[in-house]
Amino acid sequence: MAFALIHGLQSLQITSQECIFMSRSFHTQNDTSNNRCYAIKACINNSGEDSHLESKLNLVLDSVKWDEKGLAVAIAQNVDSGAILMQGFANRDALATTISSKKATFYSRSRSTLWTKGETSLNFINVLDIFLDCDRDSIIYLGKPDGPTCHTGSETCYYTSIFDSLKEPQVEKSKLALTTLYSLESTLAQRKEELSASQQGKPSWTKRLLLDDKLLCKKIREEADELCRTLEENEDDSRTLSEMADVLYHEMVLLIRRGLRFEDVLEILRFRFTQSGIEEKNSRKAKFVK
Amino acid sequence: MAFALIHGLQSLQITSQECIFMSRSFHTQNDTSNNRCYAIKACINNSGEDSHLESKLNLVLDSVKWDEKGLAVAIAQNVDSGAILMQGFANRDALATTISSKKATFYSRSRSTLWTKGETSLNFINVLDIFLDCDRDSIIYLGKPDGPTCHTGSETCYYTSIFDSLKEPQVEKSKLALTTLYSLESTLAQRKEELSASQQGKPSWTKRLLLDDKLLCKKIREEADELCRTLEENEDDSRTLSEMADVLYHEMVLLIRRGLRFEDVLEILRFRFTQSGIEEKNSRKAKFVK
Repeated sequence: MAFALIHGLQSLQITSQECIFMSRSFHTQNDTSNNRCYAIKACINNSGEDSHLESKLNLVLDSVKWDEKGLAVAIAQNVDSGAILMQGFANRDALATTISSKKATFYSRSRSTLWTKGETSLNFINVLDIFLDCDRDSIIYLGKPDGPTCHTGSETCYYTSIFDSLKEPQVEKSKLALTTLYSLESTLAQRKEELSASQQGKPSWTKRLLLDDKLLCKKIREEADELCRTLEENEDDSRTLSEMADVLYHEMVLLIRRGLRFEDVLEILRFRFTQSGIEEKNSRKAKFVK
Repeated sequence: MAFALIHGLQSLQITSQECIFMSRSFHTQNDTSNNRCYAIKACINNSGEDSHLESKLNLVLDSVKWDEKGLAVAIAQNVDSGAILMQGFANRDALATTISSKKATFYSRSRSTLWTKGETSLNFINVLDIFLDCDRDSIIYLGKPDGPTCHTGSETCYYTSIFDSLKEPQVEKSKLALTTLYSLESTLAQRKEELSASQQGKPSWTKRLLLDDKLLCKKIREEADELCRTLEENEDDSRTLSEMADVLYHEMVLLIRRGLRFEDVLEILRFRFTQSGIEEKNSRKAKFVK
């Protein structure tokens, strides 16, 4: 008897009739996991297309350069923010399960079993695409997490800066591995928190903006205008980049002023311009026709 | 005789007198590598501070949960774009070298030697911070690449989409693992390229903007104004997010119109608000005082 994994394949533009038989993958101790049931449906349509799709999948799985233990490194990355959420290992079954269930799934080396991130916490990582590196021995699960990924409650598992540790090894503070945009966002949020503390000396520019909506809006309009003028007046590229940085910074202050996250802006853009966002896009005024 | 690694420690606010002796790390076959010479300076100041710093470093290196082969996974990530550039393995020496040289360095399992990414191509990855995960067995080198990371000339090593392969395994196209912002940027750049092709039917909104600077600038000013009004008129959070998405999209079209990259805008922001950017910031009008 064969099991088929059709759940995740629908958005690959593969019809639901195109089931994949993966008896090898699911005739393991993990078959009984209730947590992965959403991903597995019995296939009732055993057509030629099935074996075609099965061979496609086997081709891909065979092409991975599994190590001597049958593993490859698997890195989960937040599709919107770009944050590296966690890193684990995948074996053939874990990758096949991720492909079908679209939930980031790994192989636990300590427990010798598959595990889907979120099966306990419900903070699944919803995988939108999967990438192999040039050596085909390293995998990215590019996806959207339902909540904090780390078992500690941290957004990602990477919150220990070695450079900070070298400065003060005794006081190891939690500091997420933030890329530029989110590092800026974090700094702005900190400035907002500091507003409630008693202010000594002249407030910083960010704090002045956070305290004065009129000033903030005046600056956003001004900076947007200056960005436009670099195009209208054919100024240097460096001017455009600099003005774009200016307007983006001020816009981010407005987001922080309202307690909003840049990641949520990106999610809206993703809904608008990606395949998965077509329905959402169609329900809106057709502003962003690609 | 001892060698000291001081190059990379200056920006850790550790004085240049605080050398680290790492005779163990550099009494290997790799000592002779000319490519790593920039990172290693003979220490002439053997003070008590040196051994203090050495013990700090050893504490950090000891805290890593090296596997049975003495390795941990090391992932290089672009600090501005968030792109995962490559993944390799680090042993104790590779991590120590990265800490000191600030160039992403790995341990080659096939050649049983350290290697610094870029020692052949000169496309180094300049490491700004290093993070450990909660299990302390996975490392992020957060840095800025000097050029394409992949030996194929690709910006990153991850350009094979498994979902694409499942659709058309014979025609495996190169498609970088792009997060939302860069996926949008890539789509906009594609629309710009298509402008030269003969146009059939009504052009998309993006193409209309790319062809009409007046329209583009009018829209950026309008959308910036609409974003501001969500604050001034205390509209719903969802309105602010949506208007921010609108203005960001139009601003990105302007960048593409001018042939510029969003990553370079982020680099400017990083120079302005991070420690390493203080000198650059001071040379400008003090606009962004944190």
